Amino acid sequence: MGSGGQACDLVIFGAMGDLALKKLFPALYQLHRADLLSGDSRILALARRDYGPDEARRHIRESLAGQLHESSLEPELLDGFLARVSYLKLDFTDAPGYPVLGDWHRQGPGTNTLVFYYATPPGLYGRITANLCSAGICDDHTRVVVEKPIGHDLASSRELNDQLARVFLEENIFRIDHYLGKETVQNLIALRFANNLFASQWDQNHISHVEITVAESVGVEGRWSYFNSAGQLRDMVQSHLLQLLCLLAMDPPSDLSPDSIRDEKVKVLKALSPLTPERISSHLVRGQYTAGTAEGIPVPGYLEEEDAEGPSHTETFIALKVEIENWRWAGVPFYIRTGKRLPEKRSEVIVHFKPAPHYIFDPDQKHLANNKLIIRLQPDEGMALQILTKDQGLSRGMRLRQGPLELTFAEAFETDRIPDAYERLLLEVMKGNQYLFVRRDEVEFAWRWVDQLLANCEECGAHPKRYAAGTWGPVASIAMITRDNRSWYEDA
Amino acid sequence: MGSGGQACDLVIFGAMGDLALKKLFPALYQLHRADLLSGDSRILALARRDYGPDEARRHIRESLAGQLHESSLEPELLDGFLARVSYLKLDFTDAPGYPVLGDWHRQGPGTNTLVFYYATPPGLYGRITANLCSAGICDDHTRVVVEKPIGHDLASSRELNDQLARVFLEENIFRIDHYLGKETVQNLIALRFANNLFASQWDQNHISHVEITVAESVGVEGRWSYFNSAGQLRDMVQSHLLQLLCLLAMDPPSDLSPDSIRDEKVKVLKALSPLTPERISSHLVRGQYTAGTAEGIPVPGYLEEEDAEGPSHTETFIALKVEIENWRWAGVPFYIRTGKRLPEKRSEVIVHFKPAPHYIFDPDQKHLANNKLIIRLQPDEGMALQILTKDQGLSRGMRLRQGPLELTFAEAFETDRIPDAYERLLLEVMKGNQYLFVRRDEVEFAWRWVDQLLANCEECGAHPKRYAAGTWGPVASIAMITRDNRSWYEDA
Repeated sequence: MGSGGQACDLVIFGAMGDLALKKLFPALYQLHRADLLSGDSRILALARRDYGPDEARRHIRESLAGQLHESSLEPELLDGFLARVSYLKLDFTDAPGYPVLGDWHRQGPGTNTLVFYYATPPGLYGRITANLCSAGICDDHTRVVVEKPIGHDLASSRELNDQLARVFLEENIFRIDHYLGKETVQNLIALRFANNLFASQWDQNHISHVEITVAESVGVEGRWSYFNSAGQLRDMVQSHLLQLLCLLAMDPPSDLSPDSIRDEKVKVLKALSPLTPERISSHLVRGQYTAGTAEGIPVPGYLEEEDAEGPSHTETFIALKVEIENWRWAGVPFYIRTGKRLPEKRSEVIVHFKPAPHYIFDPDQKHLANNKLIIRLQPDEGMALQILTKDQGLSRGMRLRQGPLELTFAEAFETDRIPDAYERLLLEVMKGNQYLFVRRDEVEFAWRWVDQLLANCEECGAHPKRYAAGTWGPVASIAMITRDNRSWYEDA
Repeated sequence: MGSGGQACDLVIFGAMGDLALKKLFPALYQLHRADLLSGDSRILALARRDYGPDEARRHIRESLAGQLHESSLEPELLDGFLARVSYLKLDFTDAPGYPVLGDWHRQGPGTNTLVFYYATPPGLYGRITANLCSAGICDDHTRVVVEKPIGHDLASSRELNDQLARVFLEENIFRIDHYLGKETVQNLIALRFANNLFASQWDQNHISHVEITVAESVGVEGRWSYFNSAGQLRDMVQSHLLQLLCLLAMDPPSDLSPDSIRDEKVKVLKALSPLTPERISSHLVRGQYTAGTAEGIPVPGYLEEEDAEGPSHTETFIALKVEIENWRWAGVPFYIRTGKRLPEKRSEVIVHFKPAPHYIFDPDQKHLANNKLIIRLQPDEGMALQILTKDQGLSRGMRLRQGPLELTFAEAFETDRIPDAYERLLLEVMKGNQYLFVRRDEVEFAWRWVDQLLANCEECGAHPKRYAAGTWGPVASIAMITRDNRSWYEDA
């Protein structure tokens, strides 16, 4: 891989929306600042608002000033960056408006790769694709970037993927799961495959179980209607948590090419043990938050949110015991949980290694006896290895003490800024490297498993249990893991 | 194990010598201060000087004031400690002077365990033992503490051990190797056997080689004559380095009893591959320092030291490639080196794990690809695990970076004082627990191997090579490990 991206003409649909203003423009500016945007690269911002070109740039400049850390803001660099940006008013549903996009591209240097970024509600993906197709702007080199969710079930994701496939080659379709852009997530690859200490123990012989927690402290944040039609399983598990699971569980790829990695990820998705109706009660807990607190402040329950629309069985929390039916992982549960209005914003993976076969220290410390690898995605991206050492102090004889070997990335790399996931992802789009993007079959196998799970929940009438905002979900989630004589890891 | 020691009557031979003043009294004071000296415990200081009791105490007090950190010095505690100390003038070679020791013991509470500590030149051990025997002071509960060296070869160590055995039971003989009292060394037991992450990889399948470096920056420090009759092999390898090697290489003991541990250590000593004359040239490098620098200041060579007595073939540096002929370690060399006038005072163990069987990252980084566990004995007791992570930074793609997961004991335990080895060792003597002391057969198997090695050196005429003070020994030491396509670890 070279260091910078190819020269691109990047067309952003929904350029005045939250995603574009909060994530894409800041990321593009950082790439510009790091000299990773090829000199000829241009950006076309599309939205429905009636802005003049200077007005749009001013709006973007103000938004950047509000988003970026002071140390990143350099006026000349900002000018240089905004000089790349043009603005165009477009009604995305209006096919006759599209040919002008082709005109803009043809006015460019001619060698730039054309990239469309759909930073719009997913409901528009189909129309935009169809309109681009009619306008005849795309060829076999045109790239498209789409955000999750890709559909809301297997059938709708197939429909959307089919639409995209009519216009773009699969090798040019970049499906973003922004978790894959996080440094810590990419680091899983290095950690697992460059370190034999871990590589040689990454299986059912040495690992007892794995936890994945993606906890949010926020509620539905004014997205009640959208969220209520999805739920935490579709919104978070189908994408982020299954992606994490795949990277954690996949067999070692023969090389780092995008398809070698994604082939291995798909194998994991295909090996996921189905949660049949008989297993639902022991392997799944759904929850829905009631009134409680968030950071000490009283907050309403899910059904009492301002934009709530009546009763609902949608889950805002889900805990799952996932099993993988293959040689590497037979008998090793992956406990995953994710929810809204939990006590804190925290994403982490905990790999629990099996204890040594024989224990020779003080019997009352036997509960300490296993190693854990803790991979923190947020806050403070980093990792820690829990090991046992001799406790210090004369009076204690040979007593054990559990302590972490710590690596916090920001400290280790002597940086106060870890690149945002979107910087990495946009750079890889411009390089044309798909290893951090989700392939069609990944999306579809993930939906297949989720669809079946939801159907089985329906069959069992497994409705969400209530939990107070500011707690770690329904007590049934604790009971689920306790039945296996384990507990959720709490970094006390 | 209880926390404190039994009540003891501790008799220190050579109480005004360096060992007693610099190590034993400070350690005993710290035990007193930590309330680990049983209330009735008493100390009898023996030396040849003509001190009155108050004069001796004043001398000890002044010495403590000079040794201890200000934060440890509490006048009332110091008074309480010194109240335990009596002084007696004694010519250790003078048998008729000994019965008074018995009188002193009988004046005590009567239930105190009698402990003799030989803090004298080893040449006196035999006479002291014989005189104690004649005086009829010792019984089956009397303990004795002796410092290394136990003899200067197998024959003399047997003679000394025989002398001790005529008066003391083996279970009451505490042979000190002060390295065994270091927190980090004891920690090897916890590290290896409480952490399956390491326990399950501690063998030839997973470890490629091990380094042990015990580097001193000092020269012979006015001990030329003694040192010249010993050399670095007898003085350091036979004791400290072989003890470290045993703790690193031993099979897991079934329990933590002193004999379970020492049985396993003896098995390692018995399995040491003999350095036959054919192997000497590839497995051993001896060196002798010439003039150079120590911390930037010019220093004389070994043969030009003030107290040097003419030409010598004694080594002040030795590097060895040691192999262990058993199932666990076949094919895994232990490279050990120790020397005087090296660039710094540093003792550390480096365990090199084998690389992963397949390498998928950038070819130019392949040299990075192995994990190392670094165990630091000094300075800054602690450990670090070298792992490979993804290098941070957008421009670098998937590049690896070697970084340590660090644990520095003083920091981890939030203490500014790690107990000195002698505190731990004296406490264990008073508890009667031998797990940190060297058993007779350990001493003798170590000498057997060293004797054979020296005889084979003699046979080959393998004289020490010269190295300038302030360097890492003769270049031949580097060549020895380079022939195996490896290098000594330098914490650059």
